[in-house]
Amino acid sequence: MEKMNIVFLLFPNLTQLDFTGPLQVLSRLPGAQVSLAAKTMEPVPTDAVLTLNPTHDFQSCPGADLLCVPGGFGIDDAMQDEETIAFVRRQAEGARYVSSVCTGAFILGAAGLLQGKKATTHWAYHDELKRVGAEPVKARVVRDGNLFTGGGVTAGIDFAFTLMAEIAGEEHARAIQLGLEYDPAPPFDAGVPDKASPGVLESQRERYAPRVAAFREALGCALKQS
Amino acid sequence: MEKMNIVFLLFPNLTQLDFTGPLQVLSRLPGAQVSLAAKTMEPVPTDAVLTLNPTHDFQSCPGADLLCVPGGFGIDDAMQDEETIAFVRRQAEGARYVSSVCTGAFILGAAGLLQGKKATTHWAYHDELKRVGAEPVKARVVRDGNLFTGGGVTAGIDFAFTLMAEIAGEEHARAIQLGLEYDPAPPFDAGVPDKASPGVLESQRERYAPRVAAFREALGCALKQS
Repeated sequence: MEKMNIVFLLFPNLTQLDFTGPLQVLSRLPGAQVSLAAKTMEPVPTDAVLTLNPTHDFQSCPGADLLCVPGGFGIDDAMQDEETIAFVRRQAEGARYVSSVCTGAFILGAAGLLQGKKATTHWAYHDELKRVGAEPVKARVVRDGNLFTGGGVTAGIDFAFTLMAEIAGEEHARAIQLGLEYDPAPPFDAGVPDKASPGVLESQRERYAPRVAAFREALGCALKQS
Repeated sequence: MEKMNIVFLLFPNLTQLDFTGPLQVLSRLPGAQVSLAAKTMEPVPTDAVLTLNPTHDFQSCPGADLLCVPGGFGIDDAMQDEETIAFVRRQAEGARYVSSVCTGAFILGAAGLLQGKKATTHWAYHDELKRVGAEPVKARVVRDGNLFTGGGVTAGIDFAFTLMAEIAGEEHARAIQLGLEYDPAPPFDAGVPDKASPGVLESQRERYAPRVAAFREALGCALKQS
């Protein structure tokens, strides 16, 4: 069986489900060898209590066949970190597939990898994709050539099954889907702005507003650097 | 704001998404204080590369308002581990809510907590629920009083939103759902046996058969002990 080197980028304050959702699915790709790459080997804090232990630092990490970049509020710093961006650029060059979930798209963007590409990200950040030269597409999973981007957080699971079907075929994806019992049944139908009540949408826009403002500034700095 | 102590049980070779899905949602409960409790403070291996760092051992862990037990192939050993079962029993006694995802139900079962209760688990293990005195219900999330059980792996996300609505109200659950963009759109409709093709179902039943056989034996030993 051909080896499939999958590299996940870890950085402080990522949203853990952006990473753990795709990890659960993609680690079941045939021949999967998964590396969790961070700047150092220290445990990486996430947004949700959990800390993540890298398997490799940027120097020791093998070359990716599939590069996966999660998002989270930590992107503000990660986008501006030259070592992180250099690692992503280097890994993307040799990869068969380059991918992101949620606001991880902006780390790809800061590395210049979204220029002229169709892409998606978390709904609260969607318009900002233009600033990294991407063509924003409102969809849960967007493919443009060898680039796969997923929407916010939980979209990473749909994203991972889409990638799996592309890489290993639909039959394999369906088998893993059954193993992971992925037959979602949310108790409410309220997961995107179009389906949210006006009150909930406004409260979430308010919650995100200062975060998006900080992000805008961080992205400006990141783009000046590159 | 009232404090909500959430305790997740960690044990070797759990299925990481059984835990990380609910963690992502439930860590956004109002007043959430999350403890990740394991037998020792050593990193806990999972089924999917990732190792998990506990925040507490069984001795130092605070009492749970909400106890969450994930599943995975590691339950074969965890169900037979007296310290683990004693911890679960002790925590469940004082908890407002007791819960499991996937085959985590059998850890609750081995602790005697499913006697006479409606419950669910991963489809491949569903019939075994009778052996721990439960009434198996084929549903993605099952509630019986203060007991909430979720189906296989990804059901943990639907389970967590159901619990969140119960604890913090529907409006809060809907707001967090929007934040996590939980508007699932699997590329295939194949996540449960009823929807799987005969070929895929057979291959997965074959894959699970030796696992289920080992589990049956382990459960027998666990029940003899208790």
